[in-house]
Amino acid sequence: MRLLYFGESHTDGMGVVIEGFPAGVSIKEEEINILLSRRQGGYGRGDRMKMEKDRVKILSGILGGKTLGDPITLFVANRDNRRETWDHDKKQTIPRPGHADLAGSIKYGFDDMRLVTERASARNTASLVLAGGLFIQFLKGFDIDIIGIVESIGGIKAEIPDNPFACYDRIISSPLRTADGIAEEKMIELIRKTKEQGDTLGGTVLTIARGVPVGLGSYCQPDERLDAALAGAFMAIPSVKGVEIGLGFELAHRKGSESHDIIKKRDKYGTGDKKTPYYRETNRAGGIEGGVSNGEDITVRVGAKPIPTLGNPLSSVDLLTGEESTAPYVRSDVCVLPALSVITESVMATVVTRFFLLRYGGDTYDEILKRYK
Amino acid sequence: MRLLYFGESHTDGMGVVIEGFPAGVSIKEEEINILLSRRQGGYGRGDRMKMEKDRVKILSGILGGKTLGDPITLFVANRDNRRETWDHDKKQTIPRPGHADLAGSIKYGFDDMRLVTERASARNTASLVLAGGLFIQFLKGFDIDIIGIVESIGGIKAEIPDNPFACYDRIISSPLRTADGIAEEKMIELIRKTKEQGDTLGGTVLTIARGVPVGLGSYCQPDERLDAALAGAFMAIPSVKGVEIGLGFELAHRKGSESHDIIKKRDKYGTGDKKTPYYRETNRAGGIEGGVSNGEDITVRVGAKPIPTLGNPLSSVDLLTGEESTAPYVRSDVCVLPALSVITESVMATVVTRFFLLRYGGDTYDEILKRYK
Amino acid sequence: MRLLYFGESHTDGMGVVIEGFPAGVSIKEEEINILLSRRQGGYGRGDRMKMEKDRVKILSGILGGKTLGDPITLFVANRDNRRETWDHDKKQTIPRPGHADLAGSIKYGFDDMRLVTERASARNTASLVLAGGLFIQFLKGFDIDIIGIVESIGGIKAEIPDNPFACYDRIISSPLRTADGIAEEKMIELIRKTKEQGDTLGGTVLTIARGVPVGLGSYCQPDERLDAALAGAFMAIPSVKGVEIGLGFELAHRKGSESHDIIKKRDKYGTGDKKTPYYRETNRAGGIEGGVSNGEDITVRVGAKPIPTLGNPLSSVDLLTGEESTAPYVRSDVCVLPALSVITESVMATVVTRFFLLRYGGDTYDEILKRYK
Amino acid sequence: MRLLYFGESHTDGMGVVIEGFPAGVSIKEEEINILLSRRQGGYGRGDRMKMEKDRVKILSGILGGKTLGDPITLFVANRDNRRETWDHDKKQTIPRPGHADLAGSIKYGFDDMRLVTERASARNTASLVLAGGLFIQFLKGFDIDIIGIVESIGGIKAEIPDNPFACYDRIISSPLRTADGIAEEKMIELIRKTKEQGDTLGGTVLTIARGVPVGLGSYCQPDERLDAALAGAFMAIPSVKGVEIGLGFELAHRKGSESHDIIKKRDKYGTGDKKTPYYRETNRAGGIEGGVSNGEDITVRVGAKPIPTLGNPLSSVDLLTGEESTAPYVRSDVCVLPALSVITESVMATVVTRFFLLRYGGDTYDEILKRYK
Repeated sequence: MRLLYFGESHTDGMGVVIEGFPAGVSIKEEEINILLSRRQGGYGRGDRMKMEKDRVKILSGILGGKTLGDPITLFVANRDNRRETWDHDKKQTIPRPGHADLAGSIKYGFDDMRLVTERASARNTASLVLAGGLFIQFLKGFDIDIIGIVESIGGIKAEIPDNPFACYDRIISSPLRTADGIAEEKMIELIRKTKEQGDTLGGTVLTIARGVPVGLGSYCQPDERLDAALAGAFMAIPSVKGVEIGLGFELAHRKGSESHDIIKKRDKYGTGDKKTPYYRETNRAGGIEGGVSNGEDITVRVGAKPIPTLGNPLSSVDLLTGEESTAPYVRSDVCVLPALSVITESVMATVVTRFFLLRYGGDTYDEILKRYK
Repeated sequence: MRLLYFGESHTDGMGVVIEGFPAGVSIKEEEINILLSRRQGGYGRGDRMKMEKDRVKILSGILGGKTLGDPITLFVANRDNRRETWDHDKKQTIPRPGHADLAGSIKYGFDDMRLVTERASARNTASLVLAGGLFIQFLKGFDIDIIGIVESIGGIKAEIPDNPFACYDRIISSPLRTADGIAEEKMIELIRKTKEQGDTLGGTVLTIARGVPVGLGSYCQPDERLDAALAGAFMAIPSVKGVEIGLGFELAHRKGSESHDIIKKRDKYGTGDKKTPYYRETNRAGGIEGGVSNGEDITVRVGAKPIPTLGNPLSSVDLLTGEESTAPYVRSDVCVLPALSVITESVMATVVTRFFLLRYGGDTYDEILKRYK
Repeated sequence: MRLLYFGESHTDGMGVVIEGFPAGVSIKEEEINILLSRRQGGYGRGDRMKMEKDRVKILSGILGGKTLGDPITLFVANRDNRRETWDHDKKQTIPRPGHADLAGSIKYGFDDMRLVTERASARNTASLVLAGGLFIQFLKGFDIDIIGIVESIGGIKAEIPDNPFACYDRIISSPLRTADGIAEEKMIELIRKTKEQGDTLGGTVLTIARGVPVGLGSYCQPDERLDAALAGAFMAIPSVKGVEIGLGFELAHRKGSESHDIIKKRDKYGTGDKKTPYYRETNRAGGIEGGVSNGEDITVRVGAKPIPTLGNPLSSVDLLTGEESTAPYVRSDVCVLPALSVITESVMATVVTRFFLLRYGGDTYDEILKRYK
Repeated sequence: MRLLYFGESHTDGMGVVIEGFPAGVSIKEEEINILLSRRQGGYGRGDRMKMEKDRVKILSGILGGKTLGDPITLFVANRDNRRETWDHDKKQTIPRPGHADLAGSIKYGFDDMRLVTERASARNTASLVLAGGLFIQFLKGFDIDIIGIVESIGGIKAEIPDNPFACYDRIISSPLRTADGIAEEKMIELIRKTKEQGDTLGGTVLTIARGVPVGLGSYCQPDERLDAALAGAFMAIPSVKGVEIGLGFELAHRKGSESHDIIKKRDKYGTGDKKTPYYRETNRAGGIEGGVSNGEDITVRVGAKPIPTLGNPLSSVDLLTGEESTAPYVRSDVCVLPALSVITESVMATVVTRFFLLRYGGDTYDEILKRYK
């Protein structure tokens, strides 16, 4: 499977082409739209998000609600007047710290930071969600479920329930994507105060894939490992600066006797147990050993830095004049953790689908079902 | 540039083919051998490491000490009697928790765990070091230096010097790859005690690349980002369960105003400043903004779990009989952090070279030099 | 550079995403449109071509007429009512010989041949022309010109002028893309008669790239050779069944002494001579030796089979009933050679650009210019 | 599946790494060796071929005669004294027309043509045969057979039997890989005479794959088509200048009514009929329609130019002095068509295996068997 994402903030829109996806898979536009609107929601967003409601447009690859086996193109249009509002003469010459502005403009020879922002903008994460919205539907057909939960914001930690899928609806519909109402209240208060201070907040998100069969990924080549692919894909999400699988860094401080998941055998098992009678009582490894899925939940934690565009802008340099200056203030989000959790779900679905198809793939949905069951 | 690693513990050996590397680069075998022997050293290794001294054999791609522009094959031979000592009838049917054994044997249909271990063994990290040994030499020609430092073992933290490259020799030659002698003593004591207890230790390694020019990596596509590539490549190292760039997870708990690196301009600059007059006084981002290198040090921290093969073996199941059993005890390393730091250096060099060639690449070393300077 | 083509006949349209193209390249929509309309023209086309005039829509990657360095998405919309005219109940169950119908429907599990035709239709070659229209503009900036000439139709051979670029306009504007008016008249007559007979015609096209510098492609790996890439890309064009480089198959019947191009040195040379003083008086090799361009014209000849959809349809089987049946008649082109020559130009430009960027590539147009000159 | 070929004439040897091949496939070294020795045989070779008998060495990926699912490295060692016989001071500065010498030395900045020849030498086709020897064995397990037949040499055409597989042994063991003894005698006479004249001969080879199931390859993307992959891989073989599938260029001169293969249905069919009841009485398409295999024989014809190194050397220029000079005479083959037919078999097997695994692939041989049958 090959994917290419494309798009900018002031061209026609953004999207993704997905090549190598099987024929005969039923895809509902509405489910992609739900995910898109979740990305735009959550407490702590600025007003801009409310202006423009993203909706998917399927440009190719799906006819009569089913995939054709050929490249699927999913697209989110920008508002019509976006391209018109672009003023070529109004250059922006002060790079914002924490953004791609400076490095990007040097790399691509731009004297206008806006040409970097066009693509490096967070708005383009909508493309990741487009793909995710398709893959989540696909995986559900194989009883693979995915959830992203906000675990902490600005240092305030929310408790993760033992079985997050049991309170899926509550988490999804909560303002900050948590199941811990008490922590959430504190987070909301912190966001409110931080906004007043003209500052921003980061946090951590835990993303879980349940029902992933044994044997996705391979130890045969570094770039075929499931853990490597997950780490790469999650780190590629804007703002993410750390990725852990299972207990992650905590394992670095434990002894070996407290770090691994001993192997047990269950007496009875069926399809629901992913075709293997072996299980673990702990899941410190986050469902991956030796780069290969072991049948337990895949758990990935990311740490995201606070948004770099602050109400009290950071110090920078005007590239045109060489003078010290402050970075321009463009948007008003204080905390995007709920949106991030939608993006991590999408990325998890994308990676799991890729590896699922490597192991069970075929030209049609029916073949895959036959192979998998 | 394309790389394929290959090899096992009981076949002829292990190695790597590197395709797409320029012609005319001088390569010294001896520098690769030094790195190979560093991988085999360090305090906390078992006796096995001493038995067999790895040395590179250049099978192709280099003639008269210079690269030909065609595929370079680097190889480390196993001892002659390794293949002979393989006993086909002596199957191993108890998967070791924390290893690829169970998932790998299900995936590949093996009834003998040893067939998984052949490739999933830590011995195969020698291949990563082979490639690293070549790339480190290449990068030095462009004043890009790399160092891997052990930051913590079993929870004991060693202080990282402000300028690790200033005490490079001391770090490289210390028993545990640290510059903090006091912490190192404590670590050695902990390793000794842990060995007595039949247990193992993990830890963290900080890897730094200095002199990396602005503009490596791209925000244009998720899989073209430098941070994504680093996270994927570092997570692919056996035992690694967490990866951070810059301050990593700590940024998730900070406010925006304390998380970014404000941009300054220096009056004078030259080649040594990587052709840009802009710099930062802090480096919380670890040298990468928006997926693109910004000219500051690239810093990557990994967390490694303790070795899963314990003197007091973990509980498992015999796949043949279905009975509860304990995992077999095969090797005696207690802590491989020093070796890990050699591997992370290699991986850093591999990723940086890949992105360096994407930006400055050409068919010959001379062309690249001309473009870069 | 990575490309993904997408689209169908009855979805929104068709297009291409181009990833890895440099920033700062000026692109004119109009030049792409000219190529699109040439693809739709030429003598021998049916009426359908006249119904719908293709025009490019740039969905992403270009702002203010210049590339941004990020993915460029070029799109041709289908008429609005195409999707509506699709009748899901009107299945087509008789596979047409010479088309992908039978193999495609078995592969993808379709019981309706139309689901194959959606993507396997010749209409989708518009995507190839979209990319070609962009790359031809790019190459012109480096004095690389490309022309596709119809060499024969239904066995009637047109003479190829010694210097086709000298009569570029005449060739481009002739009804059958030749410079040989006498042969063209005969071809037109043959097409007219063949149409009356309900039959179709194939032919051969010669495509030439002039100004290609020495050193594109590599002998280091089979899939890095320029000749291999050209052969693969040209054979991928629908209807093409044979590909030759230089004298091609004729060389198989010659002696060695009459097959190669002896090397000469010119006294004076400049940029226009592609930076090398060496030249050939013959060009039997078609500008490629050992998989690498040698500075002479790159010449590729393709042979295309006649369109398989005939006025007198071929015998087939109804997959639903198992009865012998005739293939349905859908369109009325008799000969698409002029269109094919536009497609081969596009494919030549695509392959040459890919290899040009591998050798001279950089992040921006200015860097490439600097490297090239 | 990913492949990287490597090696030179005066380093340790040459080989290939094959990544992504399933576990549990039985591989016999001896069958690879047979193919290697066939490549070195045939009438018309010089004496050099007799000096050194190639034999495969399996460096990795196979243990106890079965594949491990990890990268397989196959190697052919050069004689021990080859590296020693390399004299660094004995530069060769006259590029040979028809070889990569001139373009390669300009590309890679060499002042010694021998550094080009190291990799661009025909000796390196042994690597292609290594891979082929493995894949031919694999395909036999699925009743897919491959044969390469010399069809013409120096313009003398040998008749191709209706069913070449019926006279497989005779073809394989004939001096010029034909089943037409009368033509072969003429060819031998021509080769003898041509040798006396200090000249060389080319020819054409027909390669057939029988038993290839319906549905390999895809029309969904140009680079996923089976015909494109075959054309690319065959054109990548040194000396090949033309590739045809099915009737190839002949179709360009036929009418549509005589160019396609009408579809018929057979009453009974089984596994041997590749799971489809449909068949053709003609095979003008060479087993591929719309880029997808249709169950008929895959037939690929290549045209190879004569060897450019002649007893009466061609005119060239000494790059050191700028003087006109003649190309050095290095080897004495007159005609390598029999060897070429072994290489085309190998390439056919490589491409077919790649596409077979895309459609039926799995992690183990048993899974693939289950899916295929």
